[in-house]
Amino acid sequence: MGSQVANLPYPLDPLSLDEINTAISLVKKAHGETLLFNVVSLHEPRKAEFTAWLASPETAPRPKRVADVVVIAPGGKVFDGLVDLAGGSITKWELLDGEQPIITMEELQLVEHIVRKDPKVIEQCVISGIPAEDMHKVYCDPWTIGYDERFGSKARLQQALMYYRPDIDTCQYQYPLDFCPIYDADKGEIIAIDIPKIRRPLSKAPAVDYHPAAVEARGGYRTNLKPINITQPEGVSFKLTGREIEWQNWKFHIGFNYREGIILNNITFNDKGAVRPIFHRLSLAEMVVPYGNPERPHHRKHALDQGEYGAGYMTNSLALGCDCKGSIHYLDAHFPTRAGGVRTIKNAICIHEEDAGILFKHSDFRDDSVIVTRGRKFIISQVFTAANYEYAIYWIFHQDGTIQLEIKLTGILNTYAMLEDEDTNGWGTQVFPGVNAHNHQHLFCLRVDANVDGPDNTVFVNDAVPSEAPVGSPENYYGNGFYNKRTKLETEGQARTDYNGATSRTWEIANTNKLNPYSKKPVSYKLVSREVPGLLPKEGSLVWKRAPFARHAVHVTKYRDDELWPAGRHVPQTSGEPSRGISEWIGDGAAPIDNTDLVLWHTFGVTHFPSPEDFPVMPAEPMTLLLRPRNFFAGNPAMDVAPSFCTTPSQIAAGREAVVDASDRMSRLAFEGDDGTVSMNGANGGCCSGNNGP
Amino acid sequence: MGSQVANLPYPLDPLSLDEINTAISLVKKAHGETLLFNVVSLHEPRKAEFTAWLASPETAPRPKRVADVVVIAPGGKVFDGLVDLAGGSITKWELLDGEQPIITMEELQLVEHIVRKDPKVIEQCVISGIPAEDMHKVYCDPWTIGYDERFGSKARLQQALMYYRPDIDTCQYQYPLDFCPIYDADKGEIIAIDIPKIRRPLSKAPAVDYHPAAVEARGGYRTNLKPINITQPEGVSFKLTGREIEWQNWKFHIGFNYREGIILNNITFNDKGAVRPIFHRLSLAEMVVPYGNPERPHHRKHALDQGEYGAGYMTNSLALGCDCKGSIHYLDAHFPTRAGGVRTIKNAICIHEEDAGILFKHSDFRDDSVIVTRGRKFIISQVFTAANYEYAIYWIFHQDGTIQLEIKLTGILNTYAMLEDEDTNGWGTQVFPGVNAHNHQHLFCLRVDANVDGPDNTVFVNDAVPSEAPVGSPENYYGNGFYNKRTKLETEGQARTDYNGATSRTWEIANTNKLNPYSKKPVSYKLVSREVPGLLPKEGSLVWKRAPFARHAVHVTKYRDDELWPAGRHVPQTSGEPSRGISEWIGDGAAPIDNTDLVLWHTFGVTHFPSPEDFPVMPAEPMTLLLRPRNFFAGNPAMDVAPSFCTTPSQIAAGREAVVDASDRMSRLAFEGDDGTVSMNGANGGCCSGNNGP
Repeated sequence: MGSQVANLPYPLDPLSLDEINTAISLVKKAHGETLLFNVVSLHEPRKAEFTAWLASPETAPRPKRVADVVVIAPGGKVFDGLVDLAGGSITKWELLDGEQPIITMEELQLVEHIVRKDPKVIEQCVISGIPAEDMHKVYCDPWTIGYDERFGSKARLQQALMYYRPDIDTCQYQYPLDFCPIYDADKGEIIAIDIPKIRRPLSKAPAVDYHPAAVEARGGYRTNLKPINITQPEGVSFKLTGREIEWQNWKFHIGFNYREGIILNNITFNDKGAVRPIFHRLSLAEMVVPYGNPERPHHRKHALDQGEYGAGYMTNSLALGCDCKGSIHYLDAHFPTRAGGVRTIKNAICIHEEDAGILFKHSDFRDDSVIVTRGRKFIISQVFTAANYEYAIYWIFHQDGTIQLEIKLTGILNTYAMLEDEDTNGWGTQVFPGVNAHNHQHLFCLRVDANVDGPDNTVFVNDAVPSEAPVGSPENYYGNGFYNKRTKLETEGQARTDYNGATSRTWEIANTNKLNPYSKKPVSYKLVSREVPGLLPKEGSLVWKRAPFARHAVHVTKYRDDELWPAGRHVPQTSGEPSRGISEWIGDGAAPIDNTDLVLWHTFGVTHFPSPEDFPVMPAEPMTLLLRPRNFFAGNPAMDVAPSFCTTPSQIAAGREAVVDASDRMSRLAFEGDDGTVSMNGANGGCCSGNNGP
Repeated sequence: MGSQVANLPYPLDPLSLDEINTAISLVKKAHGETLLFNVVSLHEPRKAEFTAWLASPETAPRPKRVADVVVIAPGGKVFDGLVDLAGGSITKWELLDGEQPIITMEELQLVEHIVRKDPKVIEQCVISGIPAEDMHKVYCDPWTIGYDERFGSKARLQQALMYYRPDIDTCQYQYPLDFCPIYDADKGEIIAIDIPKIRRPLSKAPAVDYHPAAVEARGGYRTNLKPINITQPEGVSFKLTGREIEWQNWKFHIGFNYREGIILNNITFNDKGAVRPIFHRLSLAEMVVPYGNPERPHHRKHALDQGEYGAGYMTNSLALGCDCKGSIHYLDAHFPTRAGGVRTIKNAICIHEEDAGILFKHSDFRDDSVIVTRGRKFIISQVFTAANYEYAIYWIFHQDGTIQLEIKLTGILNTYAMLEDEDTNGWGTQVFPGVNAHNHQHLFCLRVDANVDGPDNTVFVNDAVPSEAPVGSPENYYGNGFYNKRTKLETEGQARTDYNGATSRTWEIANTNKLNPYSKKPVSYKLVSREVPGLLPKEGSLVWKRAPFARHAVHVTKYRDDELWPAGRHVPQTSGEPSRGISEWIGDGAAPIDNTDLVLWHTFGVTHFPSPEDFPVMPAEPMTLLLRPRNFFAGNPAMDVAPSFCTTPSQIAAGREAVVDASDRMSRLAFEGDDGTVSMNGANGGCCSGNNGP
């Protein structure tokens, strides 16, 4: 199904370098050379068209390759366009009014240079204690302004969070400045500066840097870590055809775009020969990082990083033995430059396997028979840098049919200036002298375009609850009765649901048309997610209005083409009035979602109250969620993974050798004098064995 | 501090083989040869005595080695004793009344043989469809009876969960029988059989086994998994002195007993030369696995596995490249046999390091300077088998000062017979024809004997909450204000607290006598635990009464010697009236816990509604929690871990090579034709680098 035809891209492949060039030259030909390109990206085929092709690639028409183009023309005019690449025609060209497209890295990089030359900024730097001749030591992280009612959405604005580097190699986040210039991209100049009532001069604290010279000066690196090598001398266990991956019964296509970064398409599992669809499309569709300091202008710090900057545009180039260890395959990413060229991010996506510890084990206490089988996991990952923060995204596939999304947060805290012994009023923490790290949340929106054994799915909320019958009653005499309470979500409105830790709430994406042969329950995948803080900015707040997806842990919508990004298509400078994206789509909430093609949106993440341990660079903080098969398979789907060691009761009775002893012969005992071989043989007798006495 | 003196055991070392023998012979000499030994284990030194010795091992008296002994004398008389090993004297010998000590593996193994010969049991087997001559194919898992009001606590009883193996190598949990004999250990016979009203004959379904012959018959093992080798050619990074471990600034002692299994003692972190205590003792102190089917006798299925059977007694012998991969060190365990011998479990504890992925990373978007540092973790683990289930326990130490406890659940579901198309009434799931797997919870109690920068600690509940000020008010105009609301737990009563997912609740163990130099907040370790279901058996239920620790997510008690096990010292057949253990200790709850030596008890785990994927053997289900330093360190304590790759702005400006390029040279590109070396060099330019344009 849907496998590659020679040289033809898979319909969901990202635009190639050539395709991007083609789109750009067609647009330039039609609308002039002076355009600045913000987006040239795959316009994904309509689902009906794609699935028809997928069902019979030989007979059904292959979906057209179409480029989604967003440009800024002189005068700040923004156009949305579609380009039919094969046909060489522009099928849509629309002037937008008061909408701001995503900000590119190039736009961000401009601001610092302008800030350094602006007389009013220089004046503020001098007030902060920086000599005018030291402006080359002044840095800024330009953020989209978010939304500021003083300026609205017509002008393209950035807020410049200001920092200072006493030395070029010193991390500037240790020296935040207290004022905030506002940059107008159309004018190319600073149009205002937010200056706080209380002034906070530049910190005089000596730097605590993490670069080698600084660490050496503090006594150097620890020398007591011995290397760990991870190798696959016989090669890897996965197969790649174009961008379609096959690994351990899994098959899926790896997409990537400027906005969501990694996209996993058409995920299927080969269940004893039956190729069963599970998810049509998985991605991180949006995120928001609200900061908790209510004093203006800090309320503008609530990055919707994917819609405003792009998890693709910000993605890192990765390298062997550095971001990942082992046997790695990489995929590159191609993006337009503003002027209409193409830039390539080498090694944008990392693909590799890892050992996953024990997959399953059992020993029988009565006869010492045992099986222990090690697991393997398969990981598609990227790391993107959003100014100060790093987000490492790991899509992990397991042999038991589980899909895990793990995100590691690292990088550097967003910081603001503070006076010695200034009261942070609980809105932040002094993590270093003169450095106030504000409270914040990282809320991610996982988009699950479900296809659990077919397109028609239904979502149930599952709550673990005690029997209603009281202790001592005939139905629950000893009081131990409990069960899984399932509630069907009938409409988009009813599907706005929150997390409930007390009932270990999960959400079940079921296909009610197919029952498990044994449990007689609908086949399903269950969302098991435990890091689900509510949106702390209040109902009616600016963040609440701009990030409607974050109002609930789960939303469910009927599938509709182009409903991809739950804070809207163009996110910078939205006021949230009216809210864009998911709240628009759901509207009055009447749309039924029972037994239909649906999308589940899950907002999860962490609330971060910084502490000095997070500074100057944050140890990675992991968070994770699972999509687990429940009643989907007739049994453990990993039973045919060869065990590392296995003995059966009959062999033990007969005093015979193990049937299987595939214990990893590379493993060794840790210390001199330990004899790996002897001990391994010695141990194999009791390998992974039970606990019987002599 | 507290390091080994030649040949003298560390005061917290488990009893050696010789010490166990000494204790046994002293007891036999005093009280006769006919005793059956249930426990001969280290009686830990009083804390005051131990800490005095720890403070000056050269001058303070070394705590005596004392054996905690529990025996059963003829007539089922149970004695608790203490034996002074050096003094050769029995310092305590106490006859218990109506208390039942822990059940040993040997006691469990007896029952099956008696069951097979019992005429009434044979009669029931025949009724179930098993010919009398096939009794050798009948098996049982004997559990302590838990508590059954018909029999009370004076007789030592086990309930025999009955199964059948059509073939010796067939997993019996596929063929549960519907009746339950009750075994009296003192009489050595079956004294009753619980027979359900509805009879459920032996299932005729063909077996689905996981042993090699069965997998071969179904088509064999998958052959597409290539090996992953994990090696440490230069050796390991940890040092072991006796049972004291040193690794990456961590130092602690590894204890082990019959009950809790792994115990971590005197955990300290070397903070730039200052050895700072964090925890006096960490262990899993108890657990309970309540089943949710209220129909008798299933209410008796609520194993308090550690108090009733022992995580040490049930622990597995582990082996290289099987349970763990890499460079491993093992520790053995010694336990008494009932008759008064000693049995040794080889490789009871596994000690090893693993790569931990990215420890921290940052790239600067403006100049492409980057640092990426890989992390390492250190793991102390064991696997124990509780009849059908396996519990794999991983105590994980991280370089950033975090301690993680991960538990993997695997093994086999507890099963009960069901008729074809019988309604499980929601209390269980048919996971295989004729097999009903009942709903259950796995609730573990983590005992944290805190010592955060000293013995006097205080516990705060932390809740992430919005500002109280409404949107539009001057204090919270844009509505984005939020903060960490801290509530001090003043008394043991007030400290009975539950989880709150909505506020991402954490518990902070703080030392209010020491403030962080920057944040000015008390140094602390924070319990971050997200899998915290409430106890589903109701208040007043048998389980609720017998497992008082499970009533709340957290209890805090003032430290008192011998308060180790929160369901009581002798757990089998407790009625829960009155409740033993923690509810006894807390009493009226008036004891103050502010700024004192305290113990935090945390109950966490999972609620498991079985599904066919869990059968016949369960893919490991992991759960985890963290103890994280917050305001404990003045900065990221892992800054001196050497990076894999690092470039600084000044080097990039000068077009120079990286300062540090320690990328792992063993890593390779996955596919033929990929040239690892070239690509690595190619990539290193952009290694872990930012995302700037061309």
